[in-house]
Amino acid sequence: MTTITSAETDLDTVAQLAAQLRVDAIRSSTSAGSGHPTSSMSAADLLAVLTARHLRYDWDNPSADGNDHLIFSKGHASPLLYAVFKAVGVVSDEELMTGYRRFGQRLQGHPTPVLPWVDVATGSLGQGLPDGVGVALAGKYLDKLPFRVWVLCGDSELAEGSIWEALDKASYYRLDNLVAIVDVNRLGQRGETDLGWNLGAYAARAEAFGARVLTVDGHDLTAVDEALTAAATGADGRPTVILAKTVKGKGFAKVEDSPDWHGKPFPQDMAERAVAELGGPRHLTVRGPIPETGHGETPPAVTTRPAKPITYEIGAKVATRKAYGDALVALGARDPRVVALDGEVSNSTYAFEFADAYPDRYFEMFIAEQQMVAAATGLEVRGYRPYASTFAAFLTRAYDFIRMASISGVDLRLVGSHAGVEIGPDGPSQMALEDLAMIRAVHGSTVLYPADATTTVALTNAMAGTPGISYLRTTRGSYPVLYPNGETFPIGGSKVLRSTDHDQVTLIGAGVTLHACLAAAATLAEHGIPARVIDAYSVKPIDSATLAAAAAATGGRIVVAEDHHPEGGLGSAVIDSLIGDGLTGLHVTHLAVRGMPGSGTGEELLAWAGIDADHITAAARQLLAGR
Amino acid sequence: MTTITSAETDLDTVAQLAAQLRVDAIRSSTSAGSGHPTSSMSAADLLAVLTARHLRYDWDNPSADGNDHLIFSKGHASPLLYAVFKAVGVVSDEELMTGYRRFGQRLQGHPTPVLPWVDVATGSLGQGLPDGVGVALAGKYLDKLPFRVWVLCGDSELAEGSIWEALDKASYYRLDNLVAIVDVNRLGQRGETDLGWNLGAYAARAEAFGARVLTVDGHDLTAVDEALTAAATGADGRPTVILAKTVKGKGFAKVEDSPDWHGKPFPQDMAERAVAELGGPRHLTVRGPIPETGHGETPPAVTTRPAKPITYEIGAKVATRKAYGDALVALGARDPRVVALDGEVSNSTYAFEFADAYPDRYFEMFIAEQQMVAAATGLEVRGYRPYASTFAAFLTRAYDFIRMASISGVDLRLVGSHAGVEIGPDGPSQMALEDLAMIRAVHGSTVLYPADATTTVALTNAMAGTPGISYLRTTRGSYPVLYPNGETFPIGGSKVLRSTDHDQVTLIGAGVTLHACLAAAATLAEHGIPARVIDAYSVKPIDSATLAAAAAATGGRIVVAEDHHPEGGLGSAVIDSLIGDGLTGLHVTHLAVRGMPGSGTGEELLAWAGIDADHITAAARQLLAGR
Repeated sequence: MTTITSAETDLDTVAQLAAQLRVDAIRSSTSAGSGHPTSSMSAADLLAVLTARHLRYDWDNPSADGNDHLIFSKGHASPLLYAVFKAVGVVSDEELMTGYRRFGQRLQGHPTPVLPWVDVATGSLGQGLPDGVGVALAGKYLDKLPFRVWVLCGDSELAEGSIWEALDKASYYRLDNLVAIVDVNRLGQRGETDLGWNLGAYAARAEAFGARVLTVDGHDLTAVDEALTAAATGADGRPTVILAKTVKGKGFAKVEDSPDWHGKPFPQDMAERAVAELGGPRHLTVRGPIPETGHGETPPAVTTRPAKPITYEIGAKVATRKAYGDALVALGARDPRVVALDGEVSNSTYAFEFADAYPDRYFEMFIAEQQMVAAATGLEVRGYRPYASTFAAFLTRAYDFIRMASISGVDLRLVGSHAGVEIGPDGPSQMALEDLAMIRAVHGSTVLYPADATTTVALTNAMAGTPGISYLRTTRGSYPVLYPNGETFPIGGSKVLRSTDHDQVTLIGAGVTLHACLAAAATLAEHGIPARVIDAYSVKPIDSATLAAAAAATGGRIVVAEDHHPEGGLGSAVIDSLIGDGLTGLHVTHLAVRGMPGSGTGEELLAWAGIDADHITAAARQLLAGR
Repeated sequence: MTTITSAETDLDTVAQLAAQLRVDAIRSSTSAGSGHPTSSMSAADLLAVLTARHLRYDWDNPSADGNDHLIFSKGHASPLLYAVFKAVGVVSDEELMTGYRRFGQRLQGHPTPVLPWVDVATGSLGQGLPDGVGVALAGKYLDKLPFRVWVLCGDSELAEGSIWEALDKASYYRLDNLVAIVDVNRLGQRGETDLGWNLGAYAARAEAFGARVLTVDGHDLTAVDEALTAAATGADGRPTVILAKTVKGKGFAKVEDSPDWHGKPFPQDMAERAVAELGGPRHLTVRGPIPETGHGETPPAVTTRPAKPITYEIGAKVATRKAYGDALVALGARDPRVVALDGEVSNSTYAFEFADAYPDRYFEMFIAEQQMVAAATGLEVRGYRPYASTFAAFLTRAYDFIRMASISGVDLRLVGSHAGVEIGPDGPSQMALEDLAMIRAVHGSTVLYPADATTTVALTNAMAGTPGISYLRTTRGSYPVLYPNGETFPIGGSKVLRSTDHDQVTLIGAGVTLHACLAAAATLAEHGIPARVIDAYSVKPIDSATLAAAAAATGGRIVVAEDHHPEGGLGSAVIDSLIGDGLTGLHVTHLAVRGMPGSGTGEELLAWAGIDADHITAAARQLLAGR
């Protein structure tokens, strides 16, 4: 086995390396019985040149701050990525041959960060480049480190709008540390892409979106090397897009440029012929340049300023979205890793308070929610604590990115304002009525829904240390502050706001409906019916113990009200919890938004939906009357 | 009141009309106390010229086949749209002044099709143009009618990738019947857009994406008129993008080009000054050209072919995704309104079978799921019955579009293949584990999850007549056919596959887990434990009666297993149903995917997730042992 490093690697050796990458992509996918050899083979020359001569990466220290970042946006080319990992000596040939796509192994079908050299999970196309924008933002504006972000894209995924959101933001933010290498092999899963080998069309698009474009024959090692050299020198603040014309399956004549071999491993005999055609197995170890060290010690240069203590007067009307802005400013003063992003609605979400206080830690993503979540993901890869906000309804735009961020194992803090019908006159397009269900269904997520300003501050702070995808749902209107300053709100907790020893019914609300529950309880009390009121500010995880105790204490009679569709939200969380705890004898009335709302005042719409105090009162009475 | 129609309307009158539109946008938003007057005023000249001289529309017959289509992609400019409706005489001044944004009224904050002249709901930016692509596809390829699709876009929304997906597809499909009019007023909600008044940058982008671009001063009526005339003549198969440089708040000097007046109605006194500055209220009625009639009678020219009867042998292993393709072909033979779309994975979803049979009714959307759902929406507007398919995981990419389609009231048929961990080696990025929750939470949706080929055919057929968003979840692997040909599967129903008079536990599955439930029941039976098995193929609506009866018959002991995260899916549907029906004494074990999967075989992963036959058997035994 030969180890070659850095500038020593001449292009003849690179050619050997490229053949090895192809051979290993074939061998590993055939051994696994699944995978994408042909999509790997088209990009093998690109990766051979990049890995051997341009990617500055200390393979013995993948967390080194100065390392370049390599993202496979075309995640299905994982056999190529893993072949690179073998070529640099961090994965053994044995692992490649016995671990790829196998149960319990780390060489998964599409790359995920269970591998230390992988930043983000890919495999849902069109996400690696947007994620790379976030990493490059961190490098240029926060880390102020000279690392580069190299993203291998497929041509098929250029049909995803998210790629163009990424290039738009990359040029807006002058990310000359970002290089997209597009493997234009002409063929998608089921035939030709919409632009085929029309590199001119791709070039015009990328240039119009502000990129410097370099077009090369992706199998001409000298040309690729020149392009990568140029890419590494920066381009007057422009991101670089290298359009590489390639041939799918390159290196094995039988499958070259064939539409019939997408995503198919070669049968054993064919694999053997292919490997022979490529000159047989090789076990070169080739490492490229290592970044300069010594950058990792510098703390990020950010402005902070003394935070005013946040205090609210009990009973004062404060919108939770406003409290979010207040809290984020105070948090930013304490924690320089906190950064914020918004989708051009910061004056509605109150993220603008943070933007005003710390402009160098705020990233305006304009109306591009997918890119907002992807940029947050990339910033988190670099160790920052992103808070990304928009109207809760528009977070649905980024659901695939949120799902993938969860697979990436990053900690994202999402904040959705203007939840539910409460928003009133703007109508249903602006009303988040699916968001609780959407985020609850994400693996390992945390869903928080404060009813007042004090709670919002506490939960905004708690999110800073919360792993996985955490979500804060805020409300448009102003409602009374319920809790004293300094009250604690652990994630997974709840508050019992009213209770007696002889409660007859439990009322459960969160956010705006908690206020309705309190009003209903007051009315019920006037009629001699003591009701327990629970603030379920932590929708996931939910406070099962408190719910179970309340159910037991109130004869199983529960009214739960939410400003959300009936599926998958607060009511579902409550019922799942009670059933999961084995409670029997439950009598639950679930009030939720069951019709299609229109415009109106918030009050009118809460009444129309049947989730206001009157309806909660009536539901409690009905439960007590045995329905 | 003067009524002027068609060619008579000179530009002097158009100028009067434009002033009226501004005045009415101001008056209606001030009367409502909310709305977007300044975003309406920037586009008033554009709409005045369009409405009076170019839009071919029979206002007395909004469903006339030959009518042009007008879509406000910038839905927040609803005051302008409703002012147009007044100007053409279909909405009264009184309705404008008392109905806008009011409860129970049809002039909602953002346009929805509760109005007969509105095709689709807008308000989530970046969706009107993609929807328009669908309408234009129908016009050019199916209706073969000469109507044009005019879409008013904001400049802010050009930051959404979906706009570029739309232009990509519009040029690919040579939609010269599509005109995007972009109101480039420079200002977004909280300041300047990322490109401001850089019309050159927008032009380069739109041209690179294949559009003919016309750049005009959006307040020069003559220039606008010339551009709209040119737009109406077609452009060698290219869509037209008119970039209109405009001034936000144009017509009222105090707010012109001000970043401080986004989305704010003028206070009463200011509104009065603005109206005065614009020459006071007017009540012109101006109608433009009416389309030629006689097109509506022609049935769409489509190929059909005799459908082979679909039959499957009981016990034969057939993938439900394959059965979907078979069913769609047969359905297409019977119903010429059925069309299909796919996101470049038709050989995985089996939509290719339809594409092969009826290429003129199949639209390849490449890897652009947002545009796929939007195109389906636009096709449905024209009366077609779209079936749109991709991997279920990637439907998450289009969630905002699905949500908005529901508000649009269109009937969409979505089909997601490769559900759950069952897919095996590809790993978590390709596994749909949130899709049931996502679609269940959409208002009025239907969620179907067949376990075998026979069921799939029946449900695919049933979807053709199902209102709202219906969703079919299919499985990658092949499983035994369970039901005889011709068996019926009503939506909202279920099948009891095993039952005795003395069942001790109920096992509920859908899709792949139903097979596991059957195997578990067989094992339990061997040990003398009779178990009822329910195929919950209709997840929403779910068969509450059958579930309740089973719960009652089996002592409330239920095991429900699903290849989905635990939140919001089948288990949630079952529990919600039982609790909603007031059942008490429940003992439910809910088996679902609670960890983060990796790669492996489907069998390994179903076992790892604890949703295979062994785990179901064990869960049933535990329930019977009283846990």
